[in-house]
Amino acid sequence: MPYRRGRTTSIVSGGTRVKFSVLGGSGAWPSAGQACSGYIVEQNEYRVLIDPGYGVAMLLSGMVPAYAIDAVLVSHGHPDHCADLNPLLRARALDDVTRDPLPVHALTGSLDKVLELDRAGMLDSAYSLRSFEAGERISVGPFAVKTRLLPHWLPNAGFRISAQGASITYTGDAGPSADLVELARATDLLVAEATYVDAVPGDSLGFLSSARDAGRQATDARASRLLLTHLWPGTDPLAAERSARSQFSGSVAVARPGMTMTVGEP
Amino acid sequence: MPYRRGRTTSIVSGGTRVKFSVLGGSGAWPSAGQACSGYIVEQNEYRVLIDPGYGVAMLLSGMVPAYAIDAVLVSHGHPDHCADLNPLLRARALDDVTRDPLPVHALTGSLDKVLELDRAGMLDSAYSLRSFEAGERISVGPFAVKTRLLPHWLPNAGFRISAQGASITYTGDAGPSADLVELARATDLLVAEATYVDAVPGDSLGFLSSARDAGRQATDARASRLLLTHLWPGTDPLAAERSARSQFSGSVAVARPGMTMTVGEP
Repeated sequence: MPYRRGRTTSIVSGGTRVKFSVLGGSGAWPSAGQACSGYIVEQNEYRVLIDPGYGVAMLLSGMVPAYAIDAVLVSHGHPDHCADLNPLLRARALDDVTRDPLPVHALTGSLDKVLELDRAGMLDSAYSLRSFEAGERISVGPFAVKTRLLPHWLPNAGFRISAQGASITYTGDAGPSADLVELARATDLLVAEATYVDAVPGDSLGFLSSARDAGRQATDARASRLLLTHLWPGTDPLAAERSARSQFSGSVAVARPGMTMTVGEP
Repeated sequence: MPYRRGRTTSIVSGGTRVKFSVLGGSGAWPSAGQACSGYIVEQNEYRVLIDPGYGVAMLLSGMVPAYAIDAVLVSHGHPDHCADLNPLLRARALDDVTRDPLPVHALTGSLDKVLELDRAGMLDSAYSLRSFEAGERISVGPFAVKTRLLPHWLPNAGFRISAQGASITYTGDAGPSADLVELARATDLLVAEATYVDAVPGDSLGFLSSARDAGRQATDARASRLLLTHLWPGTDPLAAERSARSQFSGSVAVARPGMTMTVGEP
């Protein structure tokens, strides 16, 4: 039975595990048939779509109806992390059945360009924009979400998404920072942008991370598991995994479409 | 050997057939795992991508490198027909190898919003915008393209794409019109938007077509073959096919991903 706002938590106590699914994890643009960033965090059938990047709406449409997504959470306004919000909202706005507006949580102003792709007003009924400022704590269905500004070219929010003691921390796109280590402290799963393998080139230094950076920060935060994502197209995933493992002794994997992981008590 | 501008036509006379491939044909938004509008017209390895709708860049990335597309041709500025131009240009702008700018042919101003998804200047090196006004004849590699304004909510160009006597006519999204019948006169393949099966609802009347409209217009134009596309999500393709066949005695099919057709002399 789907979780619905307004119900008491006792109704959802049947399962405390949080499921994390990968739709795509290609960095910057879709490559080798893989979508860009797109993840689902789910508990008791309440599904939060994180970062609807290029290709994600098409993949989703083959898996669940658009109305099976209960909320959207966006790290930042680069289109490889949010462009497919537009078709997702179309699917809900233009469908025959009237549904509740989809809560879309994003940094203030970050979705302006994507929301302007269609004519003014066309998608208004389909969403309810819940703008936040980095640093705020927000509630998304059964999840408590801590947000934190992490270094990128434009404002980027990292998320620590928690429910009943389990947590997943997601960096969006971000250069290494003490803020991430603090946000990810003892998290069950750190999902970390790792655009590069060992070293970030000079022009991106401080704004993006390597798999090595991600491994080091997972160690510093004492995270349980590390999932590398947003690899630059063409990157060897095994090389990224090795680089992270050189810094982190916990479980390391590279995001690939269809992968699912669970956190929390069974 | 790829066709390149500047070579004499004798070099490409090895094959006169024109190949048409469907990447996606879902109307309005991706549905059932199918991308929105996206087609490739190809002769002698010169590939024109028509209408890069949602999901198309991801599909393409699994088939050919982004640089294997030689030109883009866009019917109109609705994002289900052009949103994935942005990731396609990213793939070319951010790749390590410098390539010639991609010629992008579109109605003046129709791509403004899509081209603004990334920060100003970021994609400039990746494309050369060839704006046209509906009614102009343009050259795209080996193809002569007649353009015609066809009725839609915003300016929409129909195309008659010809090479060495073979032609494909594409409606973009359009209500029925004598202009289409004239544009498609005796064309080898009419690729027609058929959002509805039998009747277009009142609020879309004149701006979109049914499969029945498409069949009638194929007959009026004396087209050889008809390919229905842009069906409203959830539409039964067999019902659309039947409706078109009631008006047109030539070959009728419904676009599906991976479908290819050839026109012209072998």
